[in-house]
Amino acid sequence: MLRVTVGLPGRQYDILIGAELLGRAAEFIAPLGPTRIAIVTGTAVGALYASALRRSLSTIADVTAITLPDGESHKQWTSVSRILDALVEVRADRRSLVVALGGGVIGDIAGFAASIYMRGIRLVQIPTTLLAQVDSSVGGKTGINHPRGKNLIGAFHQPQLVISDTATLQTLPDRELSAGLAEVLKHGLLADRDYFERTARELTLLRARDPDALMSAVGRSCQIKAGIVERDERESGERALLNLGHTFGHAIEALTGYDRWLHGEAVGCGLVLAADLSHRVGLLPRESLAPIEAAVHAAGLPARIEGLSARAAIESMRGDKKSEAGAIRFILLERIGRALQRTVPDLALQDTLASGGYL
Amino acid sequence: MLRVTVGLPGRQYDILIGAELLGRAAEFIAPLGPTRIAIVTGTAVGALYASALRRSLSTIADVTAITLPDGESHKQWTSVSRILDALVEVRADRRSLVVALGGGVIGDIAGFAASIYMRGIRLVQIPTTLLAQVDSSVGGKTGINHPRGKNLIGAFHQPQLVISDTATLQTLPDRELSAGLAEVLKHGLLADRDYFERTARELTLLRARDPDALMSAVGRSCQIKAGIVERDERESGERALLNLGHTFGHAIEALTGYDRWLHGEAVGCGLVLAADLSHRVGLLPRESLAPIEAAVHAAGLPARIEGLSARAAIESMRGDKKSEAGAIRFILLERIGRALQRTVPDLALQDTLASGGYL
Repeated sequence: MLRVTVGLPGRQYDILIGAELLGRAAEFIAPLGPTRIAIVTGTAVGALYASALRRSLSTIADVTAITLPDGESHKQWTSVSRILDALVEVRADRRSLVVALGGGVIGDIAGFAASIYMRGIRLVQIPTTLLAQVDSSVGGKTGINHPRGKNLIGAFHQPQLVISDTATLQTLPDRELSAGLAEVLKHGLLADRDYFERTARELTLLRARDPDALMSAVGRSCQIKAGIVERDERESGERALLNLGHTFGHAIEALTGYDRWLHGEAVGCGLVLAADLSHRVGLLPRESLAPIEAAVHAAGLPARIEGLSARAAIESMRGDKKSEAGAIRFILLERIGRALQRTVPDLALQDTLASGGYL
Repeated sequence: MLRVTVGLPGRQYDILIGAELLGRAAEFIAPLGPTRIAIVTGTAVGALYASALRRSLSTIADVTAITLPDGESHKQWTSVSRILDALVEVRADRRSLVVALGGGVIGDIAGFAASIYMRGIRLVQIPTTLLAQVDSSVGGKTGINHPRGKNLIGAFHQPQLVISDTATLQTLPDRELSAGLAEVLKHGLLADRDYFERTARELTLLRARDPDALMSAVGRSCQIKAGIVERDERESGERALLNLGHTFGHAIEALTGYDRWLHGEAVGCGLVLAADLSHRVGLLPRESLAPIEAAVHAAGLPARIEGLSARAAIESMRGDKKSEAGAIRFILLERIGRALQRTVPDLALQDTLASGGYL
């Protein structure tokens, strides 16, 4: 088991990473001394793992379980409201604990509910997708979608503990595993060249769900993300670097109605576009482009998504919540392993989109 | 004009207190450099003051106004959702600013909406009731009601600035002015004997809305509350003292359906019950009881609310969100000017309720 500590001032917490941790959840959560535990999960993950978790946690507290319907379309107030109603129903108090068991959507919804119930009760994340283990469960971002934009409503609410059981990745669909690898590649690209190169070499192992390769990747990604979040929790500066590939990715998701591509797939393609743009504005050397595109492809991700409207993509990026007064700030690569934030000339952006198959 | 500074670590802000400040709002808010301002107000207050505020703020930013229906019954998600929709509609971004113009209900709803839009944008409170000026606009508590409990859903979100224009109190209904005086008396009782005694002497002046008496009371109450919030923002200890009179007050509100008595009226009666209970458990001397009851009465508040069920009151207090695992922690007076937190014997509580006219 690996342990990564996130050292936020006054709110330090651990990320535990390893195989078969779920059944030992009580051992890790008992020190928090909760009076009552509410497990929030989704239909599919709940069917696989909720009863084992419940069995473990029942030894230390009264446990209630709330199962939400699966899918990003349920990442809305109705789901939050269901959790709040259940918490009121069982008289959850300030010493109660919400445990989010599932992927990023469940973690975001349950985390947001925990952040606003009685102005904030404690939260433990048990992410069951690679994407959630390397990205969304770390850093305290929670929230729901607004009909006009993803994650427009939410809160920063750091968990007390994250338990990443890599054994749960054995049941993850291939496409979702690849989606998680997009964030793994991203972490290497923006912060650690060696990690990017090792990941690129181990993609076959990772896609075959080799336990050691998975534990090592989740661990290194969490270290990188935790380090950045420690230095900039509220995203006033460095944390924005974690959005490498995401400005393009969000536009792809918005233009395709959020149902054609998974978030990680859109980010995979976004990494290739961000690399291209980085080169066009004189940062990333040309010879770095091919290895990035090759890695995205080898991860099982779309390196190109053609036929979208360049004009609509730019419009969407201007409306992104990272934008201020309509100016798009891109995360670009200076070299593999080092990112920075910049605005770019319109022409360079248009050229990148054209080269990426946008119309 | 008085200026009280709330010195939270990394988030210091000022409370400005004086007559006729509303028309000068732009002068105070300009340093925050907002790109866009959304004024959130209620029907009645908006009709009186929104256009003057809008005129002032239009000189420094694009301004939009959102008017919510009046009344505690609208302190629910529908109202928050209306604000969020309006913010999305005008493309409010992270440099935008929400300005809450109204009483405690508007401040709570608008503050909560600001806290969750894009995981938190900036907020300025312009409280227009005495209750909001001395209490709810200071300290960062925001939220809405759940059908099963008041303020069960919310967030801590400190404002950037509070502008308390005491001239707006000239149009406040008498009953609401008295309700605000309950919190003024509370601040003296829990923290400053001289302030309690001065307030008790000046109740006639205050109820006649003497500008100097109002400015001085709002100023001292804000100082007391700010000091406590600085030492304990998240209510892990000392901040609970601000709930003096509130455990009883919340039960009165719950038992009478939240429509018979204003919050401040229930708190007024709650102060008398808390004093009685403090005496019964051997803390407050008997001779302090009469001056407290007399001051509550002279403030225009109900010192006794008879005929409620003692059993239902106790049940309601056990379910209060300040309770933990069913144990009620009361704020009691050791003497006038000094409060502490304690559990009490059931018998003492029953005697207090019986003496207060509970059945």
